[in-house]
Amino acid sequence: MTSSETATTENIYSDRCAAILEHMREDDMSAMILGTGPDLEFFTGLDVSSHERLTALVIQADGDDFLIAPAVDAGKAVRERTAEIGVKLIPWQDGQSPYELIIRNLVVPDIADGGFSGRGVGLGASLTADHVLEIQNGLAGLNHGCVLAGPVIDQLRMVKTDHEIEELAAAGAAIDRVHARVPELLQPGRTEAEIAEEITAMILEEGHVSVDFVIVGSGPNGADPHHSFSDRKLRTGELVVVDIGGALPSGYRSDCTRTYLVADSDPQVITERVLDMYRVLEKAQAASVKAVRPGVTAGEIDRVARDAIAAAGYGEQFIHRTGHGIGLTTHEAPSISSGSDTVLQPGMAFSVEPGIYFTGDVGARIEDIVVVTEDGVRLLNNRPRSLFW
Amino acid sequence: MTSSETATTENIYSDRCAAILEHMREDDMSAMILGTGPDLEFFTGLDVSSHERLTALVIQADGDDFLIAPAVDAGKAVRERTAEIGVKLIPWQDGQSPYELIIRNLVVPDIADGGFSGRGVGLGASLTADHVLEIQNGLAGLNHGCVLAGPVIDQLRMVKTDHEIEELAAAGAAIDRVHARVPELLQPGRTEAEIAEEITAMILEEGHVSVDFVIVGSGPNGADPHHSFSDRKLRTGELVVVDIGGALPSGYRSDCTRTYLVADSDPQVITERVLDMYRVLEKAQAASVKAVRPGVTAGEIDRVARDAIAAAGYGEQFIHRTGHGIGLTTHEAPSISSGSDTVLQPGMAFSVEPGIYFTGDVGARIEDIVVVTEDGVRLLNNRPRSLFW
Repeated sequence: MTSSETATTENIYSDRCAAILEHMREDDMSAMILGTGPDLEFFTGLDVSSHERLTALVIQADGDDFLIAPAVDAGKAVRERTAEIGVKLIPWQDGQSPYELIIRNLVVPDIADGGFSGRGVGLGASLTADHVLEIQNGLAGLNHGCVLAGPVIDQLRMVKTDHEIEELAAAGAAIDRVHARVPELLQPGRTEAEIAEEITAMILEEGHVSVDFVIVGSGPNGADPHHSFSDRKLRTGELVVVDIGGALPSGYRSDCTRTYLVADSDPQVITERVLDMYRVLEKAQAASVKAVRPGVTAGEIDRVARDAIAAAGYGEQFIHRTGHGIGLTTHEAPSISSGSDTVLQPGMAFSVEPGIYFTGDVGARIEDIVVVTEDGVRLLNNRPRSLFW
Repeated sequence: MTSSETATTENIYSDRCAAILEHMREDDMSAMILGTGPDLEFFTGLDVSSHERLTALVIQADGDDFLIAPAVDAGKAVRERTAEIGVKLIPWQDGQSPYELIIRNLVVPDIADGGFSGRGVGLGASLTADHVLEIQNGLAGLNHGCVLAGPVIDQLRMVKTDHEIEELAAAGAAIDRVHARVPELLQPGRTEAEIAEEITAMILEEGHVSVDFVIVGSGPNGADPHHSFSDRKLRTGELVVVDIGGALPSGYRSDCTRTYLVADSDPQVITERVLDMYRVLEKAQAASVKAVRPGVTAGEIDRVARDAIAAAGYGEQFIHRTGHGIGLTTHEAPSISSGSDTVLQPGMAFSVEPGIYFTGDVGARIEDIVVVTEDGVRLLNNRPRSLFW
């Protein structure tokens, strides 16, 4: 699959199920059991909701892939999609044990026969304890243990195909169109909540099908990276951190932060101290984006931003990692964090979002989604980053 | 705590944390580790959202109860509530292992010392595999295994206090007020989706803070218990299954189904066959509700409805259990299902909702929430059940 034009539903998911097998073999993982959520959506395109009845995709190195699902949930869409991508559908009725059905259909060598050299069956992170403990009991009967499937899946999921990158680019362009409309909303005297409500509507107007988060942090609230919005009113001369994102119909996500200055006609209201802080942040974020290219570690991208901010004396005020991968979920691999030795490869997509926060006083953050290209970096967010634009 | 008037936040949650210890001791469970979700909300009142960073409540028979939470999420509300109810708050920073913190603060006898006779530490059902496997590794270091906490918690959660029953009664009355307004919406030519949108607004208008589900199943769609709503237009003489529910500010849930007849002026449009089916359902549901009293098993309540429907020749068309417990979640213990030997006790609250479904043709369901009283049953939903009301 080399472009969105040639990508059909069938080959997207069949290709992914085939591609993961190589990573599984490298890791001696004979099978994976994945619950509902982004992993299942990644491999089947099915966005099935989770409840107390088990739905799980099983991908096998030496057996047929199958989807186990409650009969009441195995409707037309599920039947058609599984048939299309060559995954066997195994519906189960109340009274049956879905765990027994999984164990019966698993093709794993018995460790007692000396045939198994692997680390166990991989479990998807989203499986809940009620299912995990039952699956573990079943695997014990096969002399098998289990490990987390996440690290193996991440190897595949964190390197995006061209089709996925175009979806992320579309999401980035959509959220850029929202940010283009934000400045007009930021009038002194309006509350963060009023502004957030309008931004929420705009995110949906601009092509998203869901709103994942809307942060409008004015003045001291901008210094709390986990603030959402409140009844606080904006005041002239303050900074406002606006961090917003949602999902396109394809499930791919946007996530972009800009920090704005609330100003009437006179931009002189901002203090030299805040101006200096923001200039340091702008430069650090730009330097970190420019450092992105194949072969560099994720830890190095974090270090570039962190060193620039620390060198200006704000090191203590940069209290989170520099970024996170993005795709069908807002937070996924790779983590752009201190000491990470994940080596960047073409196709990886992640945020670069350093921030400087003086608790109870003032804060700022700039965030762009970037993609690693063959020889450097592509920005998926392109709105101006200056306070005075 | 004997009434909603005397129930303070402090004693509700302290009482629950104390009450669960008796059930844990009966089951030889020395500690419980509960992730975010209804279990954590039940014991602390905190409705914390779940993400990749672990938040967990640990309840201990021989040690202090504690809440482990990411420092960024341990805000004022979490600090105040934990202090109020005597749960120690242990915040953790990125770079720390929350699993190590749990293990270090656990007070469990070492099995190797012969001091442990229990079945292991109880894990809450909502903990996801990424956390479960790490916790299991830590417990292995203490020579401890784990089991699901659910069955022990259910013993406490499924018997509601007077305060909880009044919340469920308020939720029932609120959804009854919505059902009172539904008939005027069911005009021939309108789509299920249009009606569902209006019902959604009404659920919020009538005191709920969230809408959990809205099913508007007209004609053949009423025969699918998992249908939500569609663009299908209502036609005169058809049945419409309307199954709706939401949550009050307290978190307690409503869930009530009525089946309506779409009729202009002439109710004669309904066929004798459908009339017969509905009469059987009305009688079966009433008989099942009347059978509710302390000492009877949940299986018996299911049997009463099932036998009445089967005796009329519709046994094959009643394809689900008779009901489910309700409280802070829509589906919880006890399950009112075939063969269940759970003995009903005063304070248990659950749905009684038999249905008859001819796939692709017609279906009907009647659902009330009921509470077991000292000598019988109290109905929390009281709208008329007749097609001709």
